[in-house]
Amino acid sequence: MKSMIQNRLANLRAEMKKLNLDAWYLSGTDPHQSEYLPDYWQIRSFISGFNGSAGYMMVTLDDAALWTDSRYFLQANEQLSETGIRLMKLRVEGTPTPADWLKSVAKEGAIVGTDATCLSVNQFRNLNQSLAPHNLHLKDCGDLMDLIWTDRPVLPPNPIFEHEVKYTGQSRQDKIEAIRAKMIESGAQSILLTALDDIAWTFNLRGSDISYNPVFMAFALVTTNDIQLYLNCDKIPDNLQKKLMSEGIKLSRYSQIYIDLCSISGKILIDPDRTNQALKEAISPDASIAMQLSTATILKAKKSDHELEMIKIAMHKDGVAMVKFLHWLKQTVGKKTVTEYDVLLKLEEFRSQQTGFMGSSFYAIVGYNENGAIVHRSVTPETAVQIEASGILLFDSGGQYPEGTTDITRTVCLSTPTELAKEDFTLVLKGTIGLAELKFPANTPGCNIDLAARQALWQTGRNYGHGTGHGIGFFLNVHEGPMGIRQEYNERVIEPGMVLSDEPAFYREGHYGIRIENVIACKEWQITEYGRFLQFETLTLCPIDTGLIEKKLMSATEIDWLNRYHQRCYNELSPALNEDEKAFLKEITNAI
Amino acid sequence: MKSMIQNRLANLRAEMKKLNLDAWYLSGTDPHQSEYLPDYWQIRSFISGFNGSAGYMMVTLDDAALWTDSRYFLQANEQLSETGIRLMKLRVEGTPTPADWLKSVAKEGAIVGTDATCLSVNQFRNLNQSLAPHNLHLKDCGDLMDLIWTDRPVLPPNPIFEHEVKYTGQSRQDKIEAIRAKMIESGAQSILLTALDDIAWTFNLRGSDISYNPVFMAFALVTTNDIQLYLNCDKIPDNLQKKLMSEGIKLSRYSQIYIDLCSISGKILIDPDRTNQALKEAISPDASIAMQLSTATILKAKKSDHELEMIKIAMHKDGVAMVKFLHWLKQTVGKKTVTEYDVLLKLEEFRSQQTGFMGSSFYAIVGYNENGAIVHRSVTPETAVQIEASGILLFDSGGQYPEGTTDITRTVCLSTPTELAKEDFTLVLKGTIGLAELKFPANTPGCNIDLAARQALWQTGRNYGHGTGHGIGFFLNVHEGPMGIRQEYNERVIEPGMVLSDEPAFYREGHYGIRIENVIACKEWQITEYGRFLQFETLTLCPIDTGLIEKKLMSATEIDWLNRYHQRCYNELSPALNEDEKAFLKEITNAI
Repeated sequence: MKSMIQNRLANLRAEMKKLNLDAWYLSGTDPHQSEYLPDYWQIRSFISGFNGSAGYMMVTLDDAALWTDSRYFLQANEQLSETGIRLMKLRVEGTPTPADWLKSVAKEGAIVGTDATCLSVNQFRNLNQSLAPHNLHLKDCGDLMDLIWTDRPVLPPNPIFEHEVKYTGQSRQDKIEAIRAKMIESGAQSILLTALDDIAWTFNLRGSDISYNPVFMAFALVTTNDIQLYLNCDKIPDNLQKKLMSEGIKLSRYSQIYIDLCSISGKILIDPDRTNQALKEAISPDASIAMQLSTATILKAKKSDHELEMIKIAMHKDGVAMVKFLHWLKQTVGKKTVTEYDVLLKLEEFRSQQTGFMGSSFYAIVGYNENGAIVHRSVTPETAVQIEASGILLFDSGGQYPEGTTDITRTVCLSTPTELAKEDFTLVLKGTIGLAELKFPANTPGCNIDLAARQALWQTGRNYGHGTGHGIGFFLNVHEGPMGIRQEYNERVIEPGMVLSDEPAFYREGHYGIRIENVIACKEWQITEYGRFLQFETLTLCPIDTGLIEKKLMSATEIDWLNRYHQRCYNELSPALNEDEKAFLKEITNAI
Repeated sequence: MKSMIQNRLANLRAEMKKLNLDAWYLSGTDPHQSEYLPDYWQIRSFISGFNGSAGYMMVTLDDAALWTDSRYFLQANEQLSETGIRLMKLRVEGTPTPADWLKSVAKEGAIVGTDATCLSVNQFRNLNQSLAPHNLHLKDCGDLMDLIWTDRPVLPPNPIFEHEVKYTGQSRQDKIEAIRAKMIESGAQSILLTALDDIAWTFNLRGSDISYNPVFMAFALVTTNDIQLYLNCDKIPDNLQKKLMSEGIKLSRYSQIYIDLCSISGKILIDPDRTNQALKEAISPDASIAMQLSTATILKAKKSDHELEMIKIAMHKDGVAMVKFLHWLKQTVGKKTVTEYDVLLKLEEFRSQQTGFMGSSFYAIVGYNENGAIVHRSVTPETAVQIEASGILLFDSGGQYPEGTTDITRTVCLSTPTELAKEDFTLVLKGTIGLAELKFPANTPGCNIDLAARQALWQTGRNYGHGTGHGIGFFLNVHEGPMGIRQEYNERVIEPGMVLSDEPAFYREGHYGIRIENVIACKEWQITEYGRFLQFETLTLCPIDTGLIEKKLMSATEIDWLNRYHQRCYNELSPALNEDEKAFLKEITNAI
């Protein structure tokens, strides 16, 4: 493997030399700035051997470096050893930026090639601005990989299917008209859609080009008169093709967008964080480019009442599956062999028994005892440990249903917990409830309310190193923008209809991880003399392990919230359960 | 008055015509971007008659408009009536920006004159960028006022005095060396100091050029080898002049800075928010300008241990004065005539009895009943209402002492409060305590912790329309940057040594205002496995009216905080009180 990587790097350098390049920058993403990538775009993994989900590289003619974050330091260290690629630890003091590093190793005036389809407009500009002061120059040279990656996987031919209006509640015509209206309001004549989930949502279409994300590779261009969808048309069944065309949607091949943009005129809206630089370069100089967050991204984030009703159906299905899983876990652990990987499989199995199940929404995180404290652990049959009738188990999983996407984390104790574990768990639970019960004024950004989930932990010197809440798609990506609830500033405010996770956590390294994640929806609360106030509704239906609760740490309001929540779980889920499961659910939802 | 304003506008327009200007922009501040202005710089008030503390103007040859915020809508409406100046309400939907308004009234290619000494580099750039797309051009024409303001007040000749090292704890040489060290770290050869409080702090000098702010008009330039102070040297007593010069500090006249900058070379650091555009223009083209927040501003914000010890002495003095005032209020209201203005005078009188008292730190806000709900009310003998032995009184005041600056708000009930008033008051108090008791990780910006002060109010649909905490100077300005605790994002994090107000509030329009303001200092708390945590220490010493507390709304922790705080107030303040006052303090600090 190591020598294979060295060969691949040698091949890349040979191509670089032909183009008179001194360095090559590799962004590690795809032309849509996707978080998860089809195999075809797993270039970083191909060229470096490092297969974490984030990282970018700079390769010179005799050196190479890869930047990744703390989640992957151990893994990258191992996978990069003996490849000649240096590991650059992001957010660690003393780690140079790519520009700084290149300045130290490359000659004055060096030319840095890159594939501009894999950098967003903003990324390209920022990289360029960081290189320029060092007299280093960024140059788009297209996708060199085709020349050196002989067995490169093909772009996925997976079929595209319709997400029916009975689920979406809104036709694609209506969605496109809404986007068009915003476009015209901005004084523009066209808008380019590039994020795959934006396109899937707008057109009420779904695919399976990327694991867990029901999207398909495409671009879309909406103009005053035209609607163009750019994709591999072979992926659309004939009758769906006809339907789309009868609705005035023109279908073109995927790469045609780069050509069509050359002859566009008027004002065109692009999202500088989700549009790749090559698309921007392709736009005719006669057109004027206005850069702003995509209208589709904003509309998609604010779920309609119909979508929210659907999501509640998905949550009900998911809750039933979760209770069946919890029942199985209780019945099995300590009696039969159960590994962390079995837990992952069983979670998917119980979900798959629910009507319409379309697959998991992400690769489940399962961590028993000390493994629960490894935040981004991917369990495999090889690394899975056996679960005994003691200790603490964390499982974070979710499903895709036509009615919506779910994401839930529960942490359970498999025997009698220690006092410390109960304290840890209860402080996390206070955070989950704190955010769920928060009332806040309209126009509040997420960082201003993150404290509601952290305060109980902070007051004891505890914390967790990740965000509290990410947006969740509607039978789409489990991570969806543009808003979030986290410490970092994000100007997008939390608005009614937005569906987010509520997942405070606490990780006791070497012992266990605790995370309690529900999905919440922002709703109107009331308009008072002092402003318009919003609130959250908890959508997830699944009991929380009361055996881990230290009741004296909870306020009367919090206890009341928990008891009401458990009563609701019982009332809503029990009709779908058999007698054994119902009795089990009754027991675990007893008031504390 | 109205015709006087019209005459002044006519004179301004005559000067504009001589310079072929189509419009004049008036920023409403001074060459140091001061919040409070010496009379010499009260140009907006001179030309418009509007004497609120914030507002800017655009004057054309036949029209004029003044932009101000909601605090001043009523006042501006009255003061501008019949002057021909339009009131432009900031942050009200439909209000045009100066550029948009000018576009609608001025001719294509219009030239807008302004005095660049009264705009910061960033303000000048922003205004310029907003005018440019409309083909409108900004032009620095200097200070036209000298030509039309015949009886313009002189620049204040008030003497400058030393803030002794026994108070500051650090010599000016040490402060300048600290600034120089940061300057050299930035690879710069010089740094320009322009904010008056930065200069006062750095040089351990104080003045009285501006009411309430013990600063003096000056600029300073620190280079690798030189220290230059630019000011009216006549204001410095001879022996202090000699002392400064013996320490290597060169004194030049105030306006010499504009000349000296013409011959500077190397890299110079300027703060684009506090350096006026004319200074930037004056810098030699041979020099390279680096723009960043002033090092002096950062160093000044983080109070040293010595400064904090001094501030505690100031807080003790202020607390004694406040208790004496509260005692007087209790003795007098209902027996003798007391107006809001008497309260203002008495607050200053009791403070003036404290050793070293240097004046109030701002014009006290005193609001009885419905007047308390007018957030920025300035009471005068004419507008003051009489205070009866009933209702609610809010007073926000502070003092300047050589040991520090104080700022405190208390709200008291003069008879038996209503249930609603108690609820309102208790929710505010929960906010004051919530922030005071918060523990939070290092590197947290203020907007992320503001919730601690607002949550109890938000949960009931209440809110207040201003920030929670502003920085406070050390025998300097009562409003000091760069950090703050408020909803708006500010990238400056809260750091140990920073001294801030903690002032949640609630205003029941037409009835009363409630605000409880203490001064708090950020301190280290503990380093845990999960990070370095900070906390606050409450510095203000003055009882909070327990008669307004609804105990059942408070948690055990909050009650404990209040009782401990009151015990501390009694223990620390009672030795400085007479027997009557001591008994009074005992009574009002009884545990609830």
